[in-house]
Order: sequence, then C-alpha cells, then structure tokens
Amino acid sequence: MTVRVGVLGATGAVGQRLIQMIDPHPDFELAALTASSSSAGKSYREAAKWRVETPIPDDVAEMTVVATDPDEVPDDVDLLFSSLPSSVGEDVEPAFVEDGYVMSSNSSNFRTDDDIPLTIPEVNPDHLGLIEVQRDERGWDGAMIKNPNCSTITMVPPLAALDEAFGLTDVRVSTLQAVSGAGYDGVTSMEIIDNAIPHIGGEEQKMETESQKLLGEFDGAEVQWHDADVAASCNRIPTLDGHLENVWADTEEDITTEDAAEAMREYESIDLPTSPDQLIHVFEEPDRPQPRLDRMRDDGMQVSVGGFRETTDGVQFNCLAHNTMRGAAGASLLNGELLLEEGYL
Amino acid sequence: MTVRVGVLGATGAVGQRLIQMIDPHPDFELAALTASSSSAGKSYREAAKWRVETPIPDDVAEMTVVATDPDEVPDDVDLLFSSLPSSVGEDVEPAFVEDGYVMSSNSSNFRTDDDIPLTIPEVNPDHLGLIEVQRDERGWDGAMIKNPNCSTITMVPPLAALDEAFGLTDVRVSTLQAVSGAGYDGVTSMEIIDNAIPHIGGEEQKMETESQKLLGEFDGAEVQWHDADVAASCNRIPTLDGHLENVWADTEEDITTEDAAEAMREYESIDLPTSPDQLIHVFEEPDRPQPRLDRMRDDGMQVSVGGFRETTDGVQFNCLAHNTMRGAAGASLLNGELLLEEGYL
Amino acid sequence: MTVRVGVLGATGAVGQRLIQMIDPHPDFELAALTASSSSAGKSYREAAKWRVETPIPDDVAEMTVVATDPDEVPDDVDLLFSSLPSSVGEDVEPAFVEDGYVMSSNSSNFRTDDDIPLTIPEVNPDHLGLIEVQRDERGWDGAMIKNPNCSTITMVPPLAALDEAFGLTDVRVSTLQAVSGAGYDGVTSMEIIDNAIPHIGGEEQKMETESQKLLGEFDGAEVQWHDADVAASCNRIPTLDGHLENVWADTEEDITTEDAAEAMREYESIDLPTSPDQLIHVFEEPDRPQPRLDRMRDDGMQVSVGGFRETTDGVQFNCLAHNTMRGAAGASLLNGELLLEEGYL
Amino acid sequence: MTVRVGVLGATGAVGQRLIQMIDPHPDFELAALTASSSSAGKSYREAAKWRVETPIPDDVAEMTVVATDPDEVPDDVDLLFSSLPSSVGEDVEPAFVEDGYVMSSNSSNFRTDDDIPLTIPEVNPDHLGLIEVQRDERGWDGAMIKNPNCSTITMVPPLAALDEAFGLTDVRVSTLQAVSGAGYDGVTSMEIIDNAIPHIGGEEQKMETESQKLLGEFDGAEVQWHDADVAASCNRIPTLDGHLENVWADTEEDITTEDAAEAMREYESIDLPTSPDQLIHVFEEPDRPQPRLDRMRDDGMQVSVGGFRETTDGVQFNCLAHNTMRGAAGASLLNGELLLEEGYL
Repeated sequence: MTVRVGVLGATGAVGQRLIQMIDPHPDFELAALTASSSSAGKSYREAAKWRVETPIPDDVAEMTVVATDPDEVPDDVDLLFSSLPSSVGEDVEPAFVEDGYVMSSNSSNFRTDDDIPLTIPEVNPDHLGLIEVQRDERGWDGAMIKNPNCSTITMVPPLAALDEAFGLTDVRVSTLQAVSGAGYDGVTSMEIIDNAIPHIGGEEQKMETESQKLLGEFDGAEVQWHDADVAASCNRIPTLDGHLENVWADTEEDITTEDAAEAMREYESIDLPTSPDQLIHVFEEPDRPQPRLDRMRDDGMQVSVGGFRETTDGVQFNCLAHNTMRGAAGASLLNGELLLEEGYL
Repeated sequence: MTVRVGVLGATGAVGQRLIQMIDPHPDFELAALTASSSSAGKSYREAAKWRVETPIPDDVAEMTVVATDPDEVPDDVDLLFSSLPSSVGEDVEPAFVEDGYVMSSNSSNFRTDDDIPLTIPEVNPDHLGLIEVQRDERGWDGAMIKNPNCSTITMVPPLAALDEAFGLTDVRVSTLQAVSGAGYDGVTSMEIIDNAIPHIGGEEQKMETESQKLLGEFDGAEVQWHDADVAASCNRIPTLDGHLENVWADTEEDITTEDAAEAMREYESIDLPTSPDQLIHVFEEPDRPQPRLDRMRDDGMQVSVGGFRETTDGVQFNCLAHNTMRGAAGASLLNGELLLEEGYL
Repeated sequence: MTVRVGVLGATGAVGQRLIQMIDPHPDFELAALTASSSSAGKSYREAAKWRVETPIPDDVAEMTVVATDPDEVPDDVDLLFSSLPSSVGEDVEPAFVEDGYVMSSNSSNFRTDDDIPLTIPEVNPDHLGLIEVQRDERGWDGAMIKNPNCSTITMVPPLAALDEAFGLTDVRVSTLQAVSGAGYDGVTSMEIIDNAIPHIGGEEQKMETESQKLLGEFDGAEVQWHDADVAASCNRIPTLDGHLENVWADTEEDITTEDAAEAMREYESIDLPTSPDQLIHVFEEPDRPQPRLDRMRDDGMQVSVGGFRETTDGVQFNCLAHNTMRGAAGASLLNGELLLEEGYL
Repeated sequence: MTVRVGVLGATGAVGQRLIQMIDPHPDFELAALTASSSSAGKSYREAAKWRVETPIPDDVAEMTVVATDPDEVPDDVDLLFSSLPSSVGEDVEPAFVEDGYVMSSNSSNFRTDDDIPLTIPEVNPDHLGLIEVQRDERGWDGAMIKNPNCSTITMVPPLAALDEAFGLTDVRVSTLQAVSGAGYDGVTSMEIIDNAIPHIGGEEQKMETESQKLLGEFDGAEVQWHDADVAASCNRIPTLDGHLENVWADTEEDITTEDAAEAMREYESIDLPTSPDQLIHVFEEPDRPQPRLDRMRDDGMQVSVGGFRETTDGVQFNCLAHNTMRGAAGASLLNGELLLEEGYL
C-alpha cells in the first residue's frame, strides 16, 4: 500500500530534490505536481528546468503539471509536500489543509505559530501532537506540519544531544552557508565569486527562534520554548551545497570535549526509511567536516560534527549538513514519513 | 633623509607586498633584499616569482638578492622588515638584532614573549617601551618588534574601541579567511573550490592570546594582558584576499548598537604615513563589509565593520580587513613607521 | 571647454563603469543620467545599486535620474553614451538621434547595419565617415556610432595587426568569458561555480559578423566587409572580469611567431585620452596573459597577447582584455573621444 | 577466478580513484599497493591522505603499502596499474615489465614509442597487437600498455567517429580543463580562483601527437599515425573535475551537423565491465555538456558532446569527459579489462 503524494511548487530547486528523493521511495508514489498557473498543463519536463545531477525520472517527466490550487489536485492524494515560496504558501497552504489535505511543508511561514508542529523527526517527534490542537483551533480536517530552516536543521541535532545530556544555556552560532540555500537564482555569480556576504535577511532570526521551539517541551497542549539564549550570525560563501556552522554551546554542567562528542554519537535516531543509521557522525580530524567532502554522508541525510574545544562555560564545535537534502527536501520527506508512521495518513 | 631598509624573506607573498608598499614610500628606501641561499646572487626579478597585480618596480627588479645572514646585509641598513617563515626566523631574527639591527617582523615566533612589543600602532603604540626591557634582558643593541597575525589584526581595532569605551569581558569570533593568508602555495585549489575548511592550525590560539596581549596595559615594565575570555573558530573559504569575521563582544556596560558603532567611528588613529585617515569604517548596510568590495578601502589599510546587533551581554558585529595589506605587509610597515616616529632609528 | 554628456541606462553594470570612467575625465562632464521610469526622480545613489570597487563619486550620487526619453534630457547635452539593454535601445536610441543627439552606444542593436559606424578607434576610425551616409539616408541630425561586443573587441586588435601585415584568411576562436559580461545578474552562482557553460546565446554570431565589419574597408560610401572565414566558440567560466581567447589565425603570407608578435607590438594606436600608450602588450611567458593578473594593465584599456605557436597556415595565440573596461564602458568612451577629436561635437 | 592486481603509486589522486573503482570490481582483486619508500610499511590509511568523496574501503585501509620495487610486489600479482609520476615511472615501469608483470599504465612516458600500445579500448583495441612487437624488440616477458592523457581521451572518441564515417583532415581544439587534472597539489588556489591559465606545459603536444597515434592504423607490425593536422590550445579553469573542449573538425566529405551527431551516436563501443552502454552521448541542448552537470554520466565513463555547428570545411562541437574517471583511472582500468578479455593475463 503506497501513499499517493503531491508536490506543491514542484519545479523549484527544493521541488526537484523532493522528486529525486520520492521517485524511488518505498512508501510514496508521486500522484500530483503543481506549479504556477503559467506552467499548468505542461509536462513536467517542459515546465521544470531540471538541474539535479541525476537525470529526471522518465515517468515523472511525462506527468502533467497542474496549478497550485486545491481544486486541481486529485482528492485521492493523501499527502502533500510543499516547497512553495513563502509568499505564495501564506494563502494557499491553509486552503489545502482546510480542504482536508495532510501537508508536510518546507515553507517558512507559520513555523513559529503556536499550533503548528515544527519538527525534526529524530529530535522532537512528539510535537506532532499539536495537530490535535491545530484541528481544534482552526477547524481543519487536514493537518499542517513544518520543518525548520536548513541552517537551523544543521545545528539542532547536536544541540539537542547536548541539551538532553547536560542542559543547554547559551548558543552562539556563525554559519558558512552554500548558495543553493537561496534557491537556484538566489545568489548571482558576481555577488559571491571571490567574496562572502555577512548577512542573510531573516536567517539569523529563524535560527534563533526555530531552535528554541524545536528544543522546547510539548506538554500535550502547547510547546514551552527552550529558554537558551541563541544568537546567530549568518554568512553566504562560494560553496554549492552544505552548510557549515561554528557553534559555541554553553551548558549547565561542566563538560569535556569527549563528553560532548559522546553525547552526540549516542544520540538516538528514529527509524524512518530516509533517516540515517546514525544521526550524528563525529569526526576526530580537527579539519572536518568540510562541505564538499562530507555533505553526502549517508545519502546527504547525516549531520557531521567535529573540531571540539573546551570553553569556559561549555564547548565549541563545528557542524555540517547538506542543506537541500537533510536541510530542506529530505527534512520534508522525513516529516512525511513521520506522519505515516504516526498514523496521520 | 630617507631610512635605508632591508626585507628579509623578500621573495615570498608578504615580501612582495612589502616591496610594493615600500617602493613609493616617502621615508624608506630599499637597500637590501634577502632570501634563501639558493636565491642569493640572483637578481630579484629572477629570484622572485612576482605575483602582485602591479608590475615589479624596475629598480627593485635589478637588485641582487643576498642570503638571509647578518654578514650579507650592509651595515648602513637602518631597518629590517622580516617576513621570514617562522621556522627560519626562530634563529635568524635574533642573530640580526644582536648584531644591532632594528627589526619590524611579521613572523609568528616571539610574538607573545614578555619583552617583545606586539603592536598595532593605532592601538597600543606605548608597548614600544618594551624595547628598553628587551635590551636590558637580552643585551641586544638593536630592537625587535612584532605585528600580530592577520586574523587578529582584523578584530582588535574594533575590540579596542569597545574596551576603551565600555570595558570588554568576553569575545567569541568566527573567521572566514582568504586563501592568501596561507601564502601563495598554502591552499591547493582541490582543497578549497566548492568547499570550506573549519580549522586553521594554530590560528585559533594566536587570535586568543595575541588579542589579550594587544589589549593589555603596559606599566613601564611589563604588559598586563587583558583578561577578556576570547574563543576563536577559524575557517578558510574560497576568497583570495580579505578576512571577514563575525564577533560577539560582551561588555561591562550595557550598550546599544549605536553606542558600539559610535565608539568605533570615533576611535582615534595615529598619524603615520601609511595609516588610514579613519581607522575603522562603519557600514550602515547590514550586508557589508564584504571581502571583494571592501578590502581595498583606503589602500587596503582600513578596517571595516557592520551588521551590529544587540545581544544579552553586549553586541555582535562583523569586521573585515585586507589580510596581506592591513594584516601583514602593511602591519609591518606601520610598525616600521612607528619606530621611526618614536626615534628608534 | 568640457563636453556635457549623458548616460542612458546609467544604473546598470556598464552604466556604472561609464560613470566611474567619465567622472575624472578631462573633456567630459556628466550632465544627465537616465534609467527606467521607475527610477526617475530618485537620486542616483538611491536608484543605482552601486557595485564598482571604488566609491560612488559624491557629486554623481546626488544627481537626479530622469527617464530614458529625449524630452527628459536637457538640450544642452552634447553627447550621449548608451548602455541600454538592446531590447530597450531598439526604439529609444533612434528617437534620441532623430532629436539631434550624438550618441556613442554599447547596445548590440544596429551594429551590423550598413550605415552605422561600428568602430574601435585604434582600428578603424575612418569608418566614422558612415555618419554622413547615415544622415543622408535616415534624415538624422545627430549621429549614432556603436562599439562591438566585448568578446569581439578582445581579438580584433591583434587580428587587425596580422591582417595589415600579412593578410588574414581564416580565424578560429574559442573564448573563456567572465561572468560580468552577462551583466550583474546574468549568471547565477549555481550555474557557474565548479562549472563552465559552452555556449553564449548570440555571442558566436556577433564575434563572426562584427569582426568582419570592423576589419572591412570603408570606401567613402560603404564598408566592404572582410572576407576572412571566422568561426567562434564561446564559453562562460567562473571568472569575474577579463575575457581570455584562444585564436588560430591563418594568413596569406607564411609567418613565424616572431613575425606575428612584432606586428602586434608595432601596431599603431591612436592618441585619445583614454587609449593606452601601447594598444597591444606582447607577453613572452607562455602562460600569460591571465585574466586576474593582466586585465587591469594600463587601467584596463590594453589588450594582452601571448602563447604564440606556429601552425600549418598561420599562428595560434591567446589574447585578453577587460570586458567591461576595454570591452564595454571604455570602448564607448573611446568612441566618444573619437567623435570629439573628429569634430562631430 | 579473480585477477590479482597491484596499484603502483597508490596514494596519489589517480591511485585513489583506481582503488575506488577496483574495490567493487567483478574481476579484479587488490593484492598490492605501492608508494614511495617513505610510505612503505605503513597501512594504506596512514600512507594516503584519502580525498575521494566516498569513504576509503575498510579492507584497503588496512593493507600495508610497499615500496615501488619489483622485489616488493608479490609474484602472484597478475596485473599492475601504474599511476606513477612520469619521472618515477621512466625507470621503474620497465623494471617491472622485464620482471614479467603485465602493466596498464597512466604515466605519460613511453606513450608515443613505436612498440607501446596506446589504447582506448572502445577506439583502437587492435593496437594491443604491438605487445608482440614489444616483446620481440625488448625481450620483455610481461607487457606494457598505456592510456592517453585525459585531455586527449575526451576528444578522440568523437573524432574517431567522424574519421570512420567521413575522413578527418584538420583538428583545432581548445580545452577548459579541471584542476584535478594536475593532481591534488598541482594548482594552488591563488593561481586559479577568479582566473584561467592559458597554457599547460606539454599538454598541447600530448593532445596533438597522442591523437594521431590513437587514430592510426595498426598493420600487424606498426601503427601508421593518422595524418590529420591537429593543433591544441590548453587552458586550466576553476573547475574541479571534467574537461570541456571546443573542437573544430574538418572532414574529407561535406557533412551536416546531423551527420556528425549521428556518427557519434552510433559509434560502436566495446563490451567491457567498465565501459558505458553508449560511449558518446549527444546533447540536443546547445549549452550542454557542462562539467558539473554531465561529468558523472554513466558513472563518469561516458563522453558527452553537443553544440554542433557547420563550418566551411566540417563541423565544430563541444565534448566533455570526467578527467580522472574516464580520463585517467577509468582509462587504465578499461585497458586492464581489455588485457584480460584479449587473453594477456
């Protein structure tokens, strides 16, 4: 029994990754692809400028794209993945959920709303319980869950491991983010060759608020956000894929670098089809992880850490994840798998 | 009256920048160029693989390179600039100073020795007083002063401005460093294209210790190092020149971002031939400074800052300087100008 | 007596370069800046996102931008430089010239029209004579002259030197073009990092036809295009500025590499304020010219060549020029200087 | 029955690729790894700085590296792959073959010697017959065959297709070569970021002579080199992997672009374990093949072509192959497979 899934915003960079990952998926079957009305009626091959390194799957290429409208998507689609631009998703995503669809969305809107689960399945699967709250409050038949921003996803698993073991107080994080995080056309070559950009609009705030929500406690009615003091500084650099982050994490208990590494190595993962065998890989080499060498570990779904050093109040370390695999498309896919596992489909 | 100067290690990347900057200098005249013994006897044109964007000065090109040995450098040379590899400088630099030469050195050895002035002329010119201590203790006729590491130089001027105005307590700094900081052959293209390297051997320690010494108080006999808690995380990225740094600075007083910007804008510079009119330029745009756009401000000698945000205990901001101009060759040149100004030549 | 000039399309990449070059110009004074109607009424500082490495000139920053319309440009402007997108220039450029303005344009439209001078002042200044033909045929009071495409400008001076000395028959040229040639937003970072694009739409044809017209003979009434067989293959690579080109040039006479180099070295330049002392610099080193090292020779206005090898029917060599200095803004500026020199203003 | 193979020069970039490709090979089993004497005695994990994107195979990691000396390699090794630097291979490779080993070598020495087969299995497998000549003349018990240079391998399959169908006369080729072609440390980041280098020492000659030998006819006693006039211009650009080449091929018969494409599409491949199903992929899109998007087609073993245009005497087109897969390690591996297939092991 496969689940029939649709992808909203299927022609964009994240949409393409989603299709690449869903096509061979054991439980999901592509049943609908939506895009802007100018693409509706075209074959996916015509509508999408395919830029993934593996060829476009043949059967997907011949599917007909429909407009991003609940009336255009077949009713027997069980699950929607949304990679809509947030300006588009603002109005359209609720329309789908009101119509009864269950949605795993990568769009940034609604992420910090009280009744919207923001989940990384390996970290806070219980936040899915907010779906009941959401249905009560909004009168929705369907459900909407969100995955966090790609830069947030990279650091939260190691932070969650530290928090669980030693209690987290303060976080300072500086990011070196790949250009693909801004979408295919997001960063021009003139902006970034031989350069770096020390600010990504809205990204600092997302990292600070989303991580507090992700690390928060769900008490059955609401999520008590974590009170760690998080400050982020986000930079764009000339790499294609893979966000590298320098983190200073202060903890309640005094810890050694080995304590920290151990907590991350042993952090329990959830068993979903797309989740890696080990969520966090710990490098011994001080100059790893590196984006190009390590972003594709475990099919791009593993988070890597390394470079541990003790500080006065905790540890500093580096972490890395593939921003469009673990960080966007794969994050949504995992959330879809979680919805299936937890009986929401 | 021009000062006759020599450059030790004249064929390397920093040596070439020094020559480019000294050639048109109002007070300095190139009188000796040294390199390894394999280059001795050759013209500078033959010995150096010139890689600076401006052509090699004609008169310099025809100078004969001599070995890096006190016996080979003419006695009437008044001032030596050293850009020797630290492994070479370890033995050779003291030999020159014992011989009576006054030396401004960029090599990393001796930088944190008690009796060696480590100076940024605009920040701690009074540390030059250590020369008397040095002469007493080591029996040297000459003098040796050092400039800090390029990544340290970038952040210390803005930190000094904050410290002077509000008292500095904690510093966290994450760097995005250009490949030229490792020398011409230091980073291979296979290592860095589409990549970033989250560790630079020894660099983190240099930033942590050198900044404490630079911000310290000289009491006439010794430098009391600043007790700020400094932790650094150093990254190499695919840029050619210009180190960009994300800084979190905690201060004793509560400050706003405008307080911080104001203190930096008004930080007093010293008047030396190569020092910029304004030491620190404050950008209003949140996405500046950027390496390629801003590294050459004021002939590569200005430090730029921007991106101020308030944090719980202070401010975060970004800073940038040209690592081989302000950060290495220009830093040594400024120290040479300071030695002249203060009557040591 | 300075000439009052206007820049059409002043906010784009070529427009910015033009302003950077015109601001300190001995004979030209900026009197009008135009842009799309959405920018009209704003200060230039507001309207343009300034991306040149030198700061925006203060007086220019405060000028008010007007719409690109003959009625909006003051009548006492003597000379217009156009860097309009070709789709815009198609209709608007003739409107200005009909109105009596003299125009030096970088836009690609009209370049191969029979009565439009397409000129590189150092190569074919006599083609300016077409202005009389143009006035007769079109009834224009003003005048319109064009400069060629940046990739064409790079190779035509060395080809002209060979043609003049030995007669040119066949040309094969392969280009390695910088991203700035496509405008600031023309090439995304995802397209070009760790990549190359072996085709630039329309560029091959431009190189083939424009070079034949430039090397043609003007007989007082029309230009007899050169009958050399020219075939081009154009590639975009991850460099910022500077087009590098591999050329095979077959000649009527048998020549040595030294014959070819000599002809280029001795090729006579014209004496205009912005023209370089020597038009073509010949490198002896086989691995030069290189874009980053050599694009700024003589303020970006010199063409460099090197790598000569004999072939069965001629020579092969490499050439380089700065595509937005020599190749676009500087090319238009030189044409403006030629118009002044020849009495058209 | 697997063949026991050894890799000479196993720690270098090509050696690492060879190991990555041999490890899962159906017919070959790694039995010996050699490196310089300083690495002898170490485990491969210690001796090699592994830089391939897939992890080092566990069993290979624990193998002990021996010196590159016939006495150190077990006698029961049936086949040697050599990726030695040519300066090392000059003396050592013949020593192994005299000792009876059969060798498939990627080193550039001996490639154009009369009695050394230089082969691309899909193009000129019959040249293997030179082994008999070689044994007669040199008194060798073993055998030595070579694969061509990576830049030659990229263009020869499409040229062979044209030659077979229409007769090849003249070739002009301009290359855009990746940095990995120079080995891991071959090109520094300072040399190539925002730059291109219009010359690769010796590479032009290799492309010109090797292609003539590869396209030559073996008459049972010697190879009659093809008399096509080949001229190459080689450039290094800032890409990691994948050589892109612009080719002008003149043919005896008049041909259309579709004739050329058809000949390439239908060019017959040989059936070896590592050879692609189709040797040459023809792109319809004018801006393909591109290095990053297309280098890994068919596991990096396919050659891609596109951008056909008619010229006066033939066609121009672009071609691309992965320089360390199809171009070096994979080329040697294919030659090893050919030796097995043809009964030389």
